[in-house]
Amino acid sequence: MRAVIMHAPGDVRVAEREDPRLIEPTDAIIRLAATCICGSDLWPYRGADQPQDQHMGHEYVGVVEEIGEAVTTLEVGDFVVGSFVISCGECEICREGHPSRCVHAVFVDGEIGTQAEKARIPFADGTLVKAPGTPDPDLIPSLLAASDVLGTGWFAADAAGAGPGRIVAVVGDGAVGLMGVLAAKQMGAERIIIFSRHPDRQALAREYGATDIITERGDEGVARLKELTGGLGAHSTVEAVGTQESMMQAIRATRPGGAVGFVGVSHDVQLPGDELFFSAVHLHGGPAPVRRYLPELIDLIWRREIDPGKVFDLTLPLADAAEGYRAMDERRATKVLLTP
Amino acid sequence: MRAVIMHAPGDVRVAEREDPRLIEPTDAIIRLAATCICGSDLWPYRGADQPQDQHMGHEYVGVVEEIGEAVTTLEVGDFVVGSFVISCGECEICREGHPSRCVHAVFVDGEIGTQAEKARIPFADGTLVKAPGTPDPDLIPSLLAASDVLGTGWFAADAAGAGPGRIVAVVGDGAVGLMGVLAAKQMGAERIIIFSRHPDRQALAREYGATDIITERGDEGVARLKELTGGLGAHSTVEAVGTQESMMQAIRATRPGGAVGFVGVSHDVQLPGDELFFSAVHLHGGPAPVRRYLPELIDLIWRREIDPGKVFDLTLPLADAAEGYRAMDERRATKVLLTP
Repeated sequence: MRAVIMHAPGDVRVAEREDPRLIEPTDAIIRLAATCICGSDLWPYRGADQPQDQHMGHEYVGVVEEIGEAVTTLEVGDFVVGSFVISCGECEICREGHPSRCVHAVFVDGEIGTQAEKARIPFADGTLVKAPGTPDPDLIPSLLAASDVLGTGWFAADAAGAGPGRIVAVVGDGAVGLMGVLAAKQMGAERIIIFSRHPDRQALAREYGATDIITERGDEGVARLKELTGGLGAHSTVEAVGTQESMMQAIRATRPGGAVGFVGVSHDVQLPGDELFFSAVHLHGGPAPVRRYLPELIDLIWRREIDPGKVFDLTLPLADAAEGYRAMDERRATKVLLTP
Repeated sequence: MRAVIMHAPGDVRVAEREDPRLIEPTDAIIRLAATCICGSDLWPYRGADQPQDQHMGHEYVGVVEEIGEAVTTLEVGDFVVGSFVISCGECEICREGHPSRCVHAVFVDGEIGTQAEKARIPFADGTLVKAPGTPDPDLIPSLLAASDVLGTGWFAADAAGAGPGRIVAVVGDGAVGLMGVLAAKQMGAERIIIFSRHPDRQALAREYGATDIITERGDEGVARLKELTGGLGAHSTVEAVGTQESMMQAIRATRPGGAVGFVGVSHDVQLPGDELFFSAVHLHGGPAPVRRYLPELIDLIWRREIDPGKVFDLTLPLADAAEGYRAMDERRATKVLLTP
């Protein structure tokens, strides 16, 4: 089968790899219907992490081709959506609602890699969720979004306590930030303020429910947000970047007693304890427990109540993955869908 | 009146000061029935903060002597308990439950100072809570504890999500940590594990509900806690110290999806973003919104369901405040009550 390999920063190629096979009785083999490139794939692409012939990709939807003998909730032919972290579904951490930190957790990225034609998914019962049927083709981008960016933006909004009567701020206008807007809107937020400088992303944010756009960043952006919120700041802030500046911007944008849901993968961030102490904000984040939200998200998509698939603004065949990476790196695309 | 003044690190004296007078119509003047020395008073005492002729003290119970004309919930002669932060009770932040970050917040310490015979309390309606009557003398230490250490330990346990079925860990065996144990017990925690090396504090912790004691610290302490919790860590961790080591110990002691309530005043703490990200814990802390909890705490004390006053292991007249500071600094006392 063909798979996307990152040999070194900036060097992405499509190569032939052996087809995956069942190893454990809890495994499933899926044929991918669609996969995509994540904002977090740009960290190694830009050299912030060091890839070494890494098999890329962790977002996926597809059709079950084979199942191990211990798999009970899936059948061959089922259309499934999976999380970007493998989870057993049975350990104490999974049962407590944090499957992305399952005691058997495996990051799909690198270990498995779903920018490919097929993938072996361990703990299939705990990781994959069956769609109600074979989706109409126009639903596939939205279902694919659920496997990471939607699930992650949703978690960030949930961790930030978005809901009725709450003012939500969103730091980061990439795919996850935009999904945070969509999630906050679904959760009933009163007002949704996104920091964004890109007209196309601003337009999509508005479509997803943003009520205000702030083009300033950092402390200037915070000052502008305070002006818009009676000097108090947001109740709930989604942080979807992962830098020192974005984390401090998120914390400072949040009122005392409010909450920051942070899902941008932290790179070189140090949070000053005294400022965090006196901020009195709640902080919760990390790799999103997407599996917890998948049944609800699939249902919302199936009933066409949300359309997260619009976040994909470029679709390419898997063979052109390198061009997809370039387009995202150069900000010509927000998020690239790959068709295997 | 007499008041306790810290002139410089290690230099505490009792001096004559003018009696406080009503300034704003929302003020009350109280005559203190008891006050005390806080673990946080040791930061300036030891030179970590720079005191300059600072009027000390922020914990207090007493009798209302005068009220301004706008005060509506109190009368002269009422016995009251107050929070260590002045709060108006009416702004959006107060109404959202975070009075310690009220838009009119004033820290009693320094600005007001309750290690004294009398104190002027601004925003008396928003800050003070009336007891059901004049307390029996043996209840006074417990009511005094409510004004900071109990309220703070309670907030930490609440912020950490202590409750039925939860394993609670407590980092710090000072007065606030011990109050965290008491709070976790009241909230129904299944198991309460405290890190402590002091036999007298261990004994009080057991009395308040601790089920396990760990004498190791730092990463060794974390390893021991993991052993006791099936490798997973605590659901809820109370952090009541405020150092880099204690914060990291608290975060590492907590399982994914669990929560740290941190109330030790942060000194030279930097939290690594990547570790916090992958820890997947909730972090919430800061100056405790004690006023929110006071009605409930006063009620529990009045009905003699809790006995937080035991945390005071030395009582001295106000005139001997300097000896009280020395006793706490040298760890001869956990917490010192001063009788004006």
